[in-house]
Amino acid sequence: MCAIVGVINSQDAAKTAYYALFSMQHRGQEASGISACDNGEILTHKGKGLVTEVFNESSLKTLKGDMAIGHNRYATAGKNSGNDSQPIAANYSLGQISVVHNGNLVNKDEVRGALIDEGAIFQSNMDTENIVHLIARNHSPHLQERITAALDKILGAYCLLVQSRHKIFAIRDKYGVRPLSLGRLKDGGYIVASETCAFDLVEATFIRDVRPGEMLVFENGEDEFESIQLFEPEPRICAFEYIYFARPDSVVEGKSVYDVRKKMGAALARQSKIKADFVVPVPDSGVPAALGYANESGIPFELAIVRNHYVGRTFIEPTQELRNLKVKLKLNPMSEVLKGKSVVVVDDSIVRGTTSKKIVELLRHAGAKEIHFRVACPELKFPERYGIDTPSFAELISANKTCDEVCKYIGADTLEFLEIDDLVKSIGDEREYSLVSFDGNYFIK
Amino acid sequence: MCAIVGVINSQDAAKTAYYALFSMQHRGQEASGISACDNGEILTHKGKGLVTEVFNESSLKTLKGDMAIGHNRYATAGKNSGNDSQPIAANYSLGQISVVHNGNLVNKDEVRGALIDEGAIFQSNMDTENIVHLIARNHSPHLQERITAALDKILGAYCLLVQSRHKIFAIRDKYGVRPLSLGRLKDGGYIVASETCAFDLVEATFIRDVRPGEMLVFENGEDEFESIQLFEPEPRICAFEYIYFARPDSVVEGKSVYDVRKKMGAALARQSKIKADFVVPVPDSGVPAALGYANESGIPFELAIVRNHYVGRTFIEPTQELRNLKVKLKLNPMSEVLKGKSVVVVDDSIVRGTTSKKIVELLRHAGAKEIHFRVACPELKFPERYGIDTPSFAELISANKTCDEVCKYIGADTLEFLEIDDLVKSIGDEREYSLVSFDGNYFIK
Amino acid sequence: MCAIVGVINSQDAAKTAYYALFSMQHRGQEASGISACDNGEILTHKGKGLVTEVFNESSLKTLKGDMAIGHNRYATAGKNSGNDSQPIAANYSLGQISVVHNGNLVNKDEVRGALIDEGAIFQSNMDTENIVHLIARNHSPHLQERITAALDKILGAYCLLVQSRHKIFAIRDKYGVRPLSLGRLKDGGYIVASETCAFDLVEATFIRDVRPGEMLVFENGEDEFESIQLFEPEPRICAFEYIYFARPDSVVEGKSVYDVRKKMGAALARQSKIKADFVVPVPDSGVPAALGYANESGIPFELAIVRNHYVGRTFIEPTQELRNLKVKLKLNPMSEVLKGKSVVVVDDSIVRGTTSKKIVELLRHAGAKEIHFRVACPELKFPERYGIDTPSFAELISANKTCDEVCKYIGADTLEFLEIDDLVKSIGDEREYSLVSFDGNYFIK
Amino acid sequence: MCAIVGVINSQDAAKTAYYALFSMQHRGQEASGISACDNGEILTHKGKGLVTEVFNESSLKTLKGDMAIGHNRYATAGKNSGNDSQPIAANYSLGQISVVHNGNLVNKDEVRGALIDEGAIFQSNMDTENIVHLIARNHSPHLQERITAALDKILGAYCLLVQSRHKIFAIRDKYGVRPLSLGRLKDGGYIVASETCAFDLVEATFIRDVRPGEMLVFENGEDEFESIQLFEPEPRICAFEYIYFARPDSVVEGKSVYDVRKKMGAALARQSKIKADFVVPVPDSGVPAALGYANESGIPFELAIVRNHYVGRTFIEPTQELRNLKVKLKLNPMSEVLKGKSVVVVDDSIVRGTTSKKIVELLRHAGAKEIHFRVACPELKFPERYGIDTPSFAELISANKTCDEVCKYIGADTLEFLEIDDLVKSIGDEREYSLVSFDGNYFIK
Repeated sequence: MCAIVGVINSQDAAKTAYYALFSMQHRGQEASGISACDNGEILTHKGKGLVTEVFNESSLKTLKGDMAIGHNRYATAGKNSGNDSQPIAANYSLGQISVVHNGNLVNKDEVRGALIDEGAIFQSNMDTENIVHLIARNHSPHLQERITAALDKILGAYCLLVQSRHKIFAIRDKYGVRPLSLGRLKDGGYIVASETCAFDLVEATFIRDVRPGEMLVFENGEDEFESIQLFEPEPRICAFEYIYFARPDSVVEGKSVYDVRKKMGAALARQSKIKADFVVPVPDSGVPAALGYANESGIPFELAIVRNHYVGRTFIEPTQELRNLKVKLKLNPMSEVLKGKSVVVVDDSIVRGTTSKKIVELLRHAGAKEIHFRVACPELKFPERYGIDTPSFAELISANKTCDEVCKYIGADTLEFLEIDDLVKSIGDEREYSLVSFDGNYFIK
Repeated sequence: MCAIVGVINSQDAAKTAYYALFSMQHRGQEASGISACDNGEILTHKGKGLVTEVFNESSLKTLKGDMAIGHNRYATAGKNSGNDSQPIAANYSLGQISVVHNGNLVNKDEVRGALIDEGAIFQSNMDTENIVHLIARNHSPHLQERITAALDKILGAYCLLVQSRHKIFAIRDKYGVRPLSLGRLKDGGYIVASETCAFDLVEATFIRDVRPGEMLVFENGEDEFESIQLFEPEPRICAFEYIYFARPDSVVEGKSVYDVRKKMGAALARQSKIKADFVVPVPDSGVPAALGYANESGIPFELAIVRNHYVGRTFIEPTQELRNLKVKLKLNPMSEVLKGKSVVVVDDSIVRGTTSKKIVELLRHAGAKEIHFRVACPELKFPERYGIDTPSFAELISANKTCDEVCKYIGADTLEFLEIDDLVKSIGDEREYSLVSFDGNYFIK
Repeated sequence: MCAIVGVINSQDAAKTAYYALFSMQHRGQEASGISACDNGEILTHKGKGLVTEVFNESSLKTLKGDMAIGHNRYATAGKNSGNDSQPIAANYSLGQISVVHNGNLVNKDEVRGALIDEGAIFQSNMDTENIVHLIARNHSPHLQERITAALDKILGAYCLLVQSRHKIFAIRDKYGVRPLSLGRLKDGGYIVASETCAFDLVEATFIRDVRPGEMLVFENGEDEFESIQLFEPEPRICAFEYIYFARPDSVVEGKSVYDVRKKMGAALARQSKIKADFVVPVPDSGVPAALGYANESGIPFELAIVRNHYVGRTFIEPTQELRNLKVKLKLNPMSEVLKGKSVVVVDDSIVRGTTSKKIVELLRHAGAKEIHFRVACPELKFPERYGIDTPSFAELISANKTCDEVCKYIGADTLEFLEIDDLVKSIGDEREYSLVSFDGNYFIK
Repeated sequence: MCAIVGVINSQDAAKTAYYALFSMQHRGQEASGISACDNGEILTHKGKGLVTEVFNESSLKTLKGDMAIGHNRYATAGKNSGNDSQPIAANYSLGQISVVHNGNLVNKDEVRGALIDEGAIFQSNMDTENIVHLIARNHSPHLQERITAALDKILGAYCLLVQSRHKIFAIRDKYGVRPLSLGRLKDGGYIVASETCAFDLVEATFIRDVRPGEMLVFENGEDEFESIQLFEPEPRICAFEYIYFARPDSVVEGKSVYDVRKKMGAALARQSKIKADFVVPVPDSGVPAALGYANESGIPFELAIVRNHYVGRTFIEPTQELRNLKVKLKLNPMSEVLKGKSVVVVDDSIVRGTTSKKIVELLRHAGAKEIHFRVACPELKFPERYGIDTPSFAELISANKTCDEVCKYIGADTLEFLEIDDLVKSIGDEREYSLVSFDGNYFIK
């Protein structure tokens, strides 16, 4: 799970990229980096941690110039990944290049294997490195041709930014699985970013989404940019952006994320009518759906679970007394509100079930009498393979248990997931979505 | 603005104090510290910053023992205060003592002046040091007598924890301006804390509030504690705890803070009926009142301002482009939701007016057509002097401008504050409150 | 073991104090701090660690003004001492005061006890706090009188700097146990410092030593300073300053430390003639004495033990393989030079004997055939009580073992200490010295 | 300028590598890193700074296994080099590989250019990356064959360690420009390191030097290692290792560095007889040569310049008063010793002349009457290109000025450099050396 940003034809481009990354880092962040190009030389600074941890005034100052691309990688459960930060900057036969990528290449192992067989070396575990190699190994004298040739060899969901010494190429795969939007900065520069909330912070104006299968070519110093439709679009935007991934103040493909989430909650409320004293969101991600649920059902909305946002990072080991500490450090149900009450709890998803189980325990401990757990997305039965870091079959609780079994496991009185149809209708059924996690229809393979 | 905690008769007392401080640090934190007593020696660790910044595993490990007291000081606008962290630990004629204090002594300058005239030295700017001196200068062979003698000389709002090598004394002034609650830990130990939300995290059971004018005496190794009513209670709990200061999941004097805030919002809604498309809280502090407003008025509730909780601390200076950055880093109004709409914005208070002004600007920029600003507390016309760090007359906008003038200054279409009466009714009119910021009735002087 | 500095009538006084402390921190440093006075307000910044760790550009910038005093405390084996950093700054009945102290008060427990009985509180373990209290408790309207009255009550070895809002008082006890020198800065300001090497770095000119029993009074804005002979001088400068404590490039009471150390080495060489292939110093402290030994004896000088100055602070625990790691990280004997050779090893002192034992082991391991250990100071039989942190009787190896027994313990072939007479002659026998560690003549008690 | 280390068949190999790097970091350090191999997976940790800054207990713990290679890069004046830390670890067609390199490839630009033309990407500025690419692009199924094929394509001075999942290959170029020595650890493992002082710290026994043109092949779990003479040796060890680069307690090609430096000093003394009061080394690097000079000339040796080893890193900007601060922070000449004296100052080299000029200034300021500057190496007239980071022609003072002009520039009374012949004799004239910096004979091109 990543977010990317590109800035061109704008003073202090790296600083604008920094702030854009800043506003997109709402799910923790494991690594961040920015490349900027000044006087024909691309410089890169990257490392582990939030953008505020990786950069300081002085490291940002070294990144001069009117062009910059940046990258956030969100916290992943996976293995230690010391060198896995982007951009990947390299010298190659046409000069210098820097690349950031949000998505996942499904044929990455084959491509990597073939590249390695041809003598390539890989210094990271990131599939972005595949793309840099493919560009470097092509023989065209034009970067643009090399990029398109490289794209012909890869399969998957991707949004890419490729920075040369004079240009930035912004590319979105033909399905448009991951979002990418274009905006204009006040000083006339352009910005391309994964989430439109980044535009708000840097005071850019949204122009339009990059189209599935489209490549935009920006040249430094040029006010106009070129649009090339590389592939016939077959749009299937990832439903997960609406469910969980995007910030509520982002607009994905013309739909307000906040608004979609409210509709999903409303759909959940229509699915089965239950009596309860109030609707409680799991903060912060469950809030809009809970609001939609409450509005639709007429059951009062209560913020009965308080989230501690000052958690920061504590490395102090808890005492024996303090169990479930990790969840409790973040979430505190109010027993004053919950005692003896029947509640509808709304969360955005159930992945492994462990956190939901702890939340139910905390609610019971706080005195809740009845707990009706409602999940604002369908059952996660299949691993997503297009850029969201969902776990394997073995770990996905809904891949292994029925809804009833999950309900028993987490300890709720009733449990319901959003129907796939309702999910689609909530986003808008005029188009198709990537729903692989729910229906296993791996349309890119 | 501070929070204090005391733990006694409990294993790993400092660790429990650490977690209690952790859950009470919801408003930033400028300094934190803990004293623990092991084998008759009191050790202290304190410093600038959040409790997670001041302590690490190894510094916490040095604080052994069954007794601990701790202190958080919240971010204050005031001057640099290098050494102003608590607890204040000292050697004195009966051995060792450590003291933490939440509140403000109104006669601190006189007491300090008198002490200095008698030859005392002050190594900090904190009024807590007054109390340590008063205890040290008394001649009784009993600490308890010295404490009561010291209390006779001070005037003000205070909650104090005094730790000797064997005891912890918990004292609340006769007005009970600042809250202090007693809980029991699972291992049989006791905990005293400013906010009951601390009990939730460390899994303590709320027993009761310390009473105005009461002193509790805990002895290490003793299961029973003593209660002494030092002063005739004249309860006037600070209304600000409900309005702004306490966490919503805390219970102050038997009243859920969350619930009181909702009532304040409802009262605001009854004050004047207006037509609007929805009610928008300023997150996070305005949320419960906005919810109450929405429920009462029937106007839909929308979380149309998104708060970025990953702000952390960025020291990167913004570019010229980025104005209003400080507020924008935190708050982003959703133009998708707001465009062309008439909204009621609910915040908990207006102090200087500068932040409210910027919020209105951001909402206008996001397209809001009409902005009805509603404040879930009365006009702040007088500086609070009992422990909350409100600014002076000159800086308090409502001390210098009428409601209409403030409305014009912040740029809203209409502006209303909660009536004092409604504030009192929201909390519960069976008792009296400290309302000095609103009515200037400085009852302690 | 400390070093102090005072700067007056000089721009950027705190910065000059910083650099002076910097050049005096040659033995590690546990704590450092500076007070500066600007516009009648004394501000202090202090903490644990080297002056380069405690201060950064921004913390130093807050310390504005023409007057500053500073303090270094050297690493002591003793107990954790969290708050024990100087200056001690306080508000008292004449305003504000800040004090630094190098030395030790022999009646500190009595004075502290009496002060505590009178109601004083002590927030540190430092005897400097005694002095601040004594000044605060006096009733004179003149600080100078208070200081002299305070001095009447204390016994011990001390160099003190007392800073008020307009003056700096520099005081040396009547024995002059610890050194204190006066210099002039290029901009006309004055500097007072423990070691003259501090003058070299800040390009000050040495004027003279502060005399035993003298108090200098500097007033801000005044070019002249006042000298008051408070006590009849009975000079007994501490011999340890020459042996071990001062930097070789310092001049103590008119004698070059480097020169004295060379003479001590020469005296050692005269004590008993032995045959050896070369003389090897234990770096860095044994180097000048070894040079003197080599010159006198005609035995070649070889730097056969190499010191690693990049040690820094490693917290990595050694493997089982790596024994004696702490000494080896610092010192590496060259086997190429030592193999099969007979060597005279010269060190400045033997305290507990543990390090000497390890050095002998390392030399044997490197192939040295014969090891004649020579110590450029007499046997340490008594704890120093006048400001140098020597350990107790039980730990001092020479308090418990004869020279022969120590020789056996450390594993040398022969061992000799400098005779007390030779020590005195090396420094210059025209005056008396503090020799308590060697002869137990505690002349202050 | 780098140092490398390899450890095989030894428990806690990374920890041993850490300590070996630790003892070799005597000239500051810009970057450090270690790769370790455990269970067939190579993990790498690297970064900017001293090994003590880049590693902590926990980062070192992740580097498990019996095999490790490590790298130090010394501070270079050159441009910022963010990603330029070694080892370079990569996935390639035979699995995983990690490489460290000390030296310089003279055909690196050609090789890099050719590789890039073939489609390779370079993610750093280090020539080490060339070698990894050459190995990856070969088609042999045996790593060893690939390495030898790669070596056929490179020209230059190099010591290489190549780590696969089961083996470590240690290679030295046929000239043996840079040193590489083999030792045995107590637990039976092997260690290969740039400097023998590393063996002392980790208690390894020196076995022999790796021979020019030799490749050693170590297999994990095997007690025996293989030796392959890849190239006919044409030994020309770099004279700079003796002059400046190696630690004095290292033995390079059987010659004690300390001993050679003393001989160079003695040769200087024979070059021209002058009268002087004493010989003063510039510490620490000039000490052995000064000692040799003093012994040969009979002029007394005095450590009249004191070095401050606690310098650490201060970022506080000096005041206007403090000129020449950088040199003064490190070096303080003792005026007590120098006043009115005629001195021979011995340093190891003059590169740009700026530091020597400041030293002469400081000595004059300290009162030295006559300053005879002696340099224990010949005039640096040509940039070294075989791994030592000497500056370009334009910056080398002796490439642009005669000895007399340099003497005038630095302000000494007389100046002499060591003759090339004497340099060679000091090391031992039974073999040839790399003397390119002095004679411009670039034997590898």
